[in-house]
Amino acid sequence: MKSICAVEGVYAAGIKEGKFGLALIRAKGTAAAVFTKNLFVAAPVILMKERMENGFLDGVIVNSGNANVYTGEQGLLDARRMAEIAAEAFSTTPDKIGVASTGVIGRFLHIDIIEDQCKRIAPLLKHDEEAGINAANAIMTTDLFPKHAICERPGFTVAGIAKGSGMIAPNMGTMLAFIYTDADFTKDELKSALLVAADRSFNRVVVDGDTSTNDCAFITATGLKGKADFGEFCSALEEVCISLAKQIAEDGEGATKMIEVTVRNAPSEEDAAEIARTVVGSPLVKTAVYGEDPNWGRLIAAAGRAGVVFDPDAVTVSISDGDVTVVLARKGEILADDKIHPDALLKAKGLMHGKKIFIDIDLDYGEYSATAWGCDLTEKYVEINGKYTT
Amino acid sequence: MKSICAVEGVYAAGIKEGKFGLALIRAKGTAAAVFTKNLFVAAPVILMKERMENGFLDGVIVNSGNANVYTGEQGLLDARRMAEIAAEAFSTTPDKIGVASTGVIGRFLHIDIIEDQCKRIAPLLKHDEEAGINAANAIMTTDLFPKHAICERPGFTVAGIAKGSGMIAPNMGTMLAFIYTDADFTKDELKSALLVAADRSFNRVVVDGDTSTNDCAFITATGLKGKADFGEFCSALEEVCISLAKQIAEDGEGATKMIEVTVRNAPSEEDAAEIARTVVGSPLVKTAVYGEDPNWGRLIAAAGRAGVVFDPDAVTVSISDGDVTVVLARKGEILADDKIHPDALLKAKGLMHGKKIFIDIDLDYGEYSATAWGCDLTEKYVEINGKYTT
Repeated sequence: MKSICAVEGVYAAGIKEGKFGLALIRAKGTAAAVFTKNLFVAAPVILMKERMENGFLDGVIVNSGNANVYTGEQGLLDARRMAEIAAEAFSTTPDKIGVASTGVIGRFLHIDIIEDQCKRIAPLLKHDEEAGINAANAIMTTDLFPKHAICERPGFTVAGIAKGSGMIAPNMGTMLAFIYTDADFTKDELKSALLVAADRSFNRVVVDGDTSTNDCAFITATGLKGKADFGEFCSALEEVCISLAKQIAEDGEGATKMIEVTVRNAPSEEDAAEIARTVVGSPLVKTAVYGEDPNWGRLIAAAGRAGVVFDPDAVTVSISDGDVTVVLARKGEILADDKIHPDALLKAKGLMHGKKIFIDIDLDYGEYSATAWGCDLTEKYVEINGKYTT
Repeated sequence: MKSICAVEGVYAAGIKEGKFGLALIRAKGTAAAVFTKNLFVAAPVILMKERMENGFLDGVIVNSGNANVYTGEQGLLDARRMAEIAAEAFSTTPDKIGVASTGVIGRFLHIDIIEDQCKRIAPLLKHDEEAGINAANAIMTTDLFPKHAICERPGFTVAGIAKGSGMIAPNMGTMLAFIYTDADFTKDELKSALLVAADRSFNRVVVDGDTSTNDCAFITATGLKGKADFGEFCSALEEVCISLAKQIAEDGEGATKMIEVTVRNAPSEEDAAEIARTVVGSPLVKTAVYGEDPNWGRLIAAAGRAGVVFDPDAVTVSISDGDVTVVLARKGEILADDKIHPDALLKAKGLMHGKKIFIDIDLDYGEYSATAWGCDLTEKYVEINGKYTT
């Protein structure tokens, strides 16, 4: 089973009607969540930041098609009403319901549609693969494919679904992730594990650098498989989050290639991550990858403006398609150019034809590494986001 | 006279042959400069950071077509050689020569071409409008038009030339500016005035957010008109730098519209500038402007992720074409949408047809303002930067 219902105690249902979708996921357990850092936050995020303090969920309700942002008091009332609707369906109380929204900013929710959809799908809640897939489909907006990830470890399973990243979509952005495990952990353990995993996955995806008002990731532990090793769990959770993050990068608007940037031997993991994010987010790097150009000048120029101190003369830059690796420049020496090293340049150009491009930047200035994911910048991105009108 | 030779004591010459251009500007006086903050810096920047300590220039030599970056010891020797070549032409010593380069990264300079071009244009150095225009043309790479600015004040003049911004160009990026005044100031006065003016102009232009390895701005005061009021000079210098910055934004690669974002009533000028830069640099804002969509959801989402603390409920957002202004949202209330305020939305859409779009974000959370400039993001930008190959 590939989706969230591979986790014991997780029941899902979903429906998508035109641009309005609704997912219900019932899973009783300790829970934690992380939210967008944008100052402008959606009404459900305001509500959840407070509610998640109690560290327990009986399930979540998620609508797509309307983000419930910039909707004032009415928006908060609507988010609360969503919790009530789901609580009724799950026979519990609204304070044990997670609420999330994604879609257009600045419109009031059609709460009647949500209520109607909920009534129709609540009887369909199931603990099987199809149910998880339906839920993942229901939360999509402009995503081209649903995102599932699963990691099975001895004694427990971690699985999650997600939808498209950041503000990639025209007014319809948002990254949402719902992750489950049947291992038993306290809310504090879940929170600390999720913070680290999200930082190493979702927070390292750059599609266009815009951060949504609605981003959130929830984790619920049903505990039905009992206690598990915390380190083992953290590693499984990170694996699931990274898989979802990479799928989000691959599905970036208009993307033709996935870009993975790894920065190695940095003074700290934070520094490595900052450089990796800056490189993968650089419009010049993104367009070079689109044009299949191994333009290492743009790579070092982007690395150099990340605000991290390192020794530019110590840096080695290479690219790979996953099989073949070409070192482009090492410690101030150019190793791939059209004059002195035309063969290496040709080889580098060849491997840029792949669908996944791996960029490796070795700072030789410390011992920490970090990886970030993104996608190329294409005319299609401009078309999608420029031609869309309010 | 519209170019730098309007300043007493400034003589210029320039030549452009294919992609290789050379400008000579002779102007004897106190001088100061500001440089790129990128860790990877061009050889001439390394040289100039040290040389400009003495605060005096007899002139500058600038080549286009090769950035002299990632060229190691040879690059430094070449930058020094450029200073020698110009010193010979100006009958002075190399330590009084400013050197700047723009063009491709990772290639050794064709110093023979530079020497030959210098020999041919040195006899053409003139104190007239055409000479200034020739110099501005010579430093262009992918710029579509040369950039001149002048401000005449009682008793003195400030004038400058510049070339394209940031890393906007395919491997050929860089913002260079050469500014002159005939007022008399010390190097410390020039330095402090230039730091403030550059911060309020060049540092507030975002074309694609990439920072070049070669960016620099030089100012020389010939002093031929004697002492002037320092405050008056600072204001004239800022006017010239802002004019050049706006021209750079207008000439962004593939741009069809100039975007000016003003953030008002912020806790500090720095905060206001950070928000203005974030909004004007947002790919979603840039594509919305390209698509002529008054998409205020993207404006507030970008403002909210700038890393500045303010009260989202106090914000007012409006747009203008310079004549007509439409308030889109005020303190949590939507004032232009397709449901309740369709007339205002229609009016807002209408003024998006202009070539210059002014965005005003009033935080009502302090008393400081800042403006940033940029341009829209178009398929043409992707084409220019994606289709270019090393």
